[in-house]
Amino acid sequence: MRILDTKNFSVPGYKAWGIHCGIKKTDKKDLAIIYSDREAAVAGVFTKNRVKAASILLDMARVRSGKGQAIIANSGCANACTGKQGLTDARATAEIAARELGIKPEAVYVASTGVIGEFLPMSKMATGISTAVGLLSTFGWEQAAEAIMTTDLYPKISIVQEEIGGKTVTIAGIAKGSGMIHPNMATMLCFIVTNANISGPMLKKSLLASTESSFNNITVDGDMSTNDLILCMANGAALNKRPVAGGKDSKKFQVCLDTVARSLAKQVVKDGEGATKFVEIEVRNARSPVEAKRAAMTVAKSSLVKTALFGEDANWGRIMAALGYSGVEMDEARTDIFIGKSKLVEKGLGQGKHADREATLALKQREVQIIIDLHKGKASATVWTCDMSCEYVKINAAYRS
Amino acid sequence: MRILDTKNFSVPGYKAWGIHCGIKKTDKKDLAIIYSDREAAVAGVFTKNRVKAASILLDMARVRSGKGQAIIANSGCANACTGKQGLTDARATAEIAARELGIKPEAVYVASTGVIGEFLPMSKMATGISTAVGLLSTFGWEQAAEAIMTTDLYPKISIVQEEIGGKTVTIAGIAKGSGMIHPNMATMLCFIVTNANISGPMLKKSLLASTESSFNNITVDGDMSTNDLILCMANGAALNKRPVAGGKDSKKFQVCLDTVARSLAKQVVKDGEGATKFVEIEVRNARSPVEAKRAAMTVAKSSLVKTALFGEDANWGRIMAALGYSGVEMDEARTDIFIGKSKLVEKGLGQGKHADREATLALKQREVQIIIDLHKGKASATVWTCDMSCEYVKINAAYRS
Repeated sequence: MRILDTKNFSVPGYKAWGIHCGIKKTDKKDLAIIYSDREAAVAGVFTKNRVKAASILLDMARVRSGKGQAIIANSGCANACTGKQGLTDARATAEIAARELGIKPEAVYVASTGVIGEFLPMSKMATGISTAVGLLSTFGWEQAAEAIMTTDLYPKISIVQEEIGGKTVTIAGIAKGSGMIHPNMATMLCFIVTNANISGPMLKKSLLASTESSFNNITVDGDMSTNDLILCMANGAALNKRPVAGGKDSKKFQVCLDTVARSLAKQVVKDGEGATKFVEIEVRNARSPVEAKRAAMTVAKSSLVKTALFGEDANWGRIMAALGYSGVEMDEARTDIFIGKSKLVEKGLGQGKHADREATLALKQREVQIIIDLHKGKASATVWTCDMSCEYVKINAAYRS
Repeated sequence: MRILDTKNFSVPGYKAWGIHCGIKKTDKKDLAIIYSDREAAVAGVFTKNRVKAASILLDMARVRSGKGQAIIANSGCANACTGKQGLTDARATAEIAARELGIKPEAVYVASTGVIGEFLPMSKMATGISTAVGLLSTFGWEQAAEAIMTTDLYPKISIVQEEIGGKTVTIAGIAKGSGMIHPNMATMLCFIVTNANISGPMLKKSLLASTESSFNNITVDGDMSTNDLILCMANGAALNKRPVAGGKDSKKFQVCLDTVARSLAKQVVKDGEGATKFVEIEVRNARSPVEAKRAAMTVAKSSLVKTALFGEDANWGRIMAALGYSGVEMDEARTDIFIGKSKLVEKGLGQGKHADREATLALKQREVQIIIDLHKGKASATVWTCDMSCEYVKINAAYRS
C-alpha cells in the first residue's frame, strides 16, 4: 500500500467539484458534487441519533439498493428538523442533480451539514448544482473537500493505492468534522471513493469494519449529530479481479480502507473546534474490549480532562476520577497512568515532581499520548480526541450569528 | 415553614468556624469545623465514583453507626488517590479533632475538597484544628461555609424553621460546589444540621429523598467527583416529640429538608464554574420518570447546548439533537420546545423569526427556563444547570497552577 500526496490527485472514473452557491452568508464554498462515470456499489453508515436529517432518511432508503452514481453535499444548512418540507427538498435536490447529470434520481445521494431547523434555499441549490455539474473535474477533490467544511479550518483528504486483483486500485476520501463529533455517528460527513471492482456486500462489510476502528473511536465534544454520514462508492473502473471474502485481496482492500478512514478520523479530531492538541488515549489490560473502549472514551469526553490538557496541566487526578465513574471494573490501587513517556501514576499513586515535570513537558507538544494500564484483564482500546479551549466555547456561542 | 435570613443565624446545640491554616497557597480559609454539643444522629450520601477519597472511605464506615458529633472539612487538597497514607491522614485528622474537642474519634467525620493526588499537610492541619476549635462559635456558619469553598465565588447557605412535635426546629445547611458537579454524587460537599429530635433511620430516609429531588437533579460539567459528600446531623436539642413515620411531623420535616437541599443545590448551579446563567430544564410527558430525567439531563449536559446558552442563541436544533441521542423514546414530529414563554418549536418545526426573537430575549436574562414537551406519556422531570463560558475553560485549564 502506498500513501499518496493529497495535492492534485484523481481517482479513475470519478469527477468532483465544489462551489459557493449562496447558502453560507460568507463567500465560502457550500456545495460539493461527486460523480462516478458509471454505476458504483455504494455502502453507508448513518447517525444513530433518533432525530435524523432529511438527507439521512433519504440516503438510508437509497442505500438498500447497494448502488449509486453521485453525491450532492451542501454545507451551511443541515436540513434537519425540517419535517415534510425537508424531505421534499432533499428529494428535489437529488432530482435536480440527476437531471443535470443525465442519470436516475435514485442514483443520487444527498448530504447536508450546518444549522439545524432551517430550510434549504432551493433556487440557489438548483442554480448551484447546474453550475457545479458544468465544472466537474477529475482533479476537483480539494474543491469538494472545501465545500463541505463548516467550522473546519482545513479540508480533510486521504488517498492510498494498492495492487488488488492484478490492477492498481485507488482509494480516496474527503471528510468534514469539527463540532458534534462523537462515536456511533460516523463523523459529520465523509465520502470515500474507489475504482476497485468489489461486491456490494463486501464493500458494506469493509466499511462497517473501518468505521469501527476509525470514526467510532473519536470524540470532540460528546454531542452526536443529526446528519452524520459516511458514504463509500466503488465503481470498478480498475477492472481488477473481484476480491473473494477472506482472501488476500480482500484483506489488502480492508487495510487500505482502514488507512483512509483512520487518517480522515484523525484529521477530524486534529481540526476539532478550537483544538490546540491531538490526544491519543490508550487503555490497556481492561477486562474486555468494550470496557477498554468505554474507559478510554469516558476520559476522552471529560470536560475537566480536556481543559487540563488545554492548560498543559498533568492533572492526573481528573483522569482517575473519570475512570472511576466510567462504570468500568477498575481498582485505583492497580492503575498506572503515563503521559508521554512519563509514568505519572503507579498503582494509583502519583510518582512525584520529576514525573510531573516530564509529563508537563510532554503536554507542551502538539500531539499527546496518554496510556492507562488498568491491570484487570487483557483487552485494550485506543481513542483519539482533542483538548477543550476557550475558542471552542467562542465558536459555539456564536455559531448561528 | 419559614425561610430565614442566612446572616448571623445559629442552630441550637451547634457551633461552627472556619479559618486559614495554610493548605491553600492564597490566604483564603481552608479548614472548617462543625460541632454538636451532644451526640447526634448522622446520615450521609456518598459519591458513586469507584475512585473514592480517603475521607469518603472513612465516613462510609463511620456512618454505619448512625451517630456522630463533629465534622472537619478542608479545602485545597482532596486527599484522593493517596492510598494508605491518605487513609492514615484522614484517620489522624479525626483523632486530632477528637482530642481537641474532648470526644471519641469515631464521632468525628472528615471531608476534603481540592486537588487530587496530593497529601494533606498534617502539621498544618493539626495546628489549624487546634486554633479552629478554640474559635468555635454559635454564629460561625458563614466562616465555615467560606472555608469549604474552592473555585466557588460565594458561600452557599440555607436555613428554615418549622414547628415539629410541639417545638421550633431549625434546619440549616452549607455547601460548596463549582466544578465536577454531576448527579449521583451529592454535590462536592454539603453539611446540613438540625436540632430536631428524629430517629437515625428516619433521618437517613429523609436525606436520601431530599438528595434525589435536589443534588441529583443538577449538573455543571458532567464530571463526577471522587469526594462528593452530604452529611446531615440531627442532635435533638429542640427536645421535640419524635416524628413517627408517615405522620404529619415527618412530612413537615421532609419538606424542610427538601427546601434546604434544593436551595443549596440551586446555589451550587448558580455558582457553577464560569456560569453566567441559571437554567431550569423541564421535560414533560415522557414515557416514564426515568426517561423524563434522562432526556432533561442529556440536554443539560450537552456542551453545544450550554455554549449556545452562553451565547444567548436560541439554537433549538442542538436541544433536539441532544434529545435524539438521549436514548429516550421520542418523536421529533411530536416534540414542542419552549424557551421562556416563547413556543420555539411545535411538532418538531421551528416557529419562525418572531418566536426566535422572543426566545432570544428570554435568553438574555440571568435565569432561563426551557420546557420540552415530548407528548409521549405522562411523566415529567426538572433539572438545573448553568451555561458553559470561556471562563469555565480558563478556570479548569489553570486549576492546579
